[in-house]
Amino acid sequence: MAEPKGKIDDTNSESAVPKAVVSRLSLYLRELQHLLRDSQETTSSTQLGSMLGFTDAQVRKDLAYFGQFGYPGIGYRCDELVHAIKRILGTDRDWPIALVGIGNLGRALLGYRGFGEQGFRVVAAFDSDPQKVGAVIEGVPVYAAEDLPQVVKSKGIRLAILAVPAIAAQAAADQVVQSGIEGVLNFAPMTITLPKEVRLVGVDLAIELEQLSFAVASRNPKPCDESI
Amino acid sequence: MAEPKGKIDDTNSESAVPKAVVSRLSLYLRELQHLLRDSQETTSSTQLGSMLGFTDAQVRKDLAYFGQFGYPGIGYRCDELVHAIKRILGTDRDWPIALVGIGNLGRALLGYRGFGEQGFRVVAAFDSDPQKVGAVIEGVPVYAAEDLPQVVKSKGIRLAILAVPAIAAQAAADQVVQSGIEGVLNFAPMTITLPKEVRLVGVDLAIELEQLSFAVASRNPKPCDESI
Repeated sequence: MAEPKGKIDDTNSESAVPKAVVSRLSLYLRELQHLLRDSQETTSSTQLGSMLGFTDAQVRKDLAYFGQFGYPGIGYRCDELVHAIKRILGTDRDWPIALVGIGNLGRALLGYRGFGEQGFRVVAAFDSDPQKVGAVIEGVPVYAAEDLPQVVKSKGIRLAILAVPAIAAQAAADQVVQSGIEGVLNFAPMTITLPKEVRLVGVDLAIELEQLSFAVASRNPKPCDESI
Repeated sequence: MAEPKGKIDDTNSESAVPKAVVSRLSLYLRELQHLLRDSQETTSSTQLGSMLGFTDAQVRKDLAYFGQFGYPGIGYRCDELVHAIKRILGTDRDWPIALVGIGNLGRALLGYRGFGEQGFRVVAAFDSDPQKVGAVIEGVPVYAAEDLPQVVKSKGIRLAILAVPAIAAQAAADQVVQSGIEGVLNFAPMTITLPKEVRLVGVDLAIELEQLSFAVASRNPKPCDESI
């Protein structure tokens, strides 16, 4: 039986923010950053919503979980709302990150510009292959897996990204937890179990493809489905 | 100004299924597949919910968008619900997929077991580098980008995954659209614009890290935040 996975609470209880709301905060942040790049100083829930296909009511409701951000007659000040959302998401501070596993995925993640754009910085990579240890990839030094506790401590690392094969995922997770990591982003297509005080977000790339097949399929039902 | 991005509707209008519900269908599907592997024949909204940290009411409400699946006194039959969810997500049929871009990310995606487990099959890869054309990686042949229209037609490809650098993303998107692709999964950290009849799902891996930093930060507020 699978264990509960320490996910962000997705129920609608008053004490927890639904996971979907947190995801939407990231989307609002991206659009506000685009607006700022286009030198737009203020925006409205209507504009923000229409850029993303949400209603203005949805935008206001999502932001209301965290406080009051708009001004009557003005709307939202883009730079203020960017700072507020970054504070909420925790990306206003520095999160030195460890990347575990330097295969194709690990190398791709070391070169992924999207992390740096949001202030995330991978400061150390780890691999069990002695051939890779000592290399510097995209400016990031590669250490042996057994050096995790010491490097995590010396660099103040709090989050780890697991980019190892599924078969190695639980062992790698146990190692990063033992080294004092507080949160794990797991790319392995595999359920892993962590102590409940360590946060886990699992990335299942097939879910993204399922969103796409749903969108295409629901527009083009199979002929044999038409009678259902 | 950014264009609306052709996302799955995330508003709560009655005509559209919220995107969050579609994501949760994928999670229910994974758990049901685990239960079937453990030879469990039936389950309940309570069990399904508790495995994922959702309430039983949430599970019932999500499934009710698509029909009536439970039996009084029995609950859900796991294999029936798996088939029903796959039909809804469109993964009960074959979706031959094109992968565009054979860098580290493209290679990682060709080897990603999670796609195959959900029935997705990458049948052709494309790259603009003549050195890579003609290779076979993880059993998938690599073609020149200009062969897209002909290969898409001959292999019946309907979905494309873009794993190209941000700077090349819009041009690659235009090429796959011209070749007749109906849906695009974009990994480039870059907003792309497609004709509205083509479905687009953007993967922003920094969003996953933001979920994690939110989860860790909201448990450990910065000392200076405590007075807010």
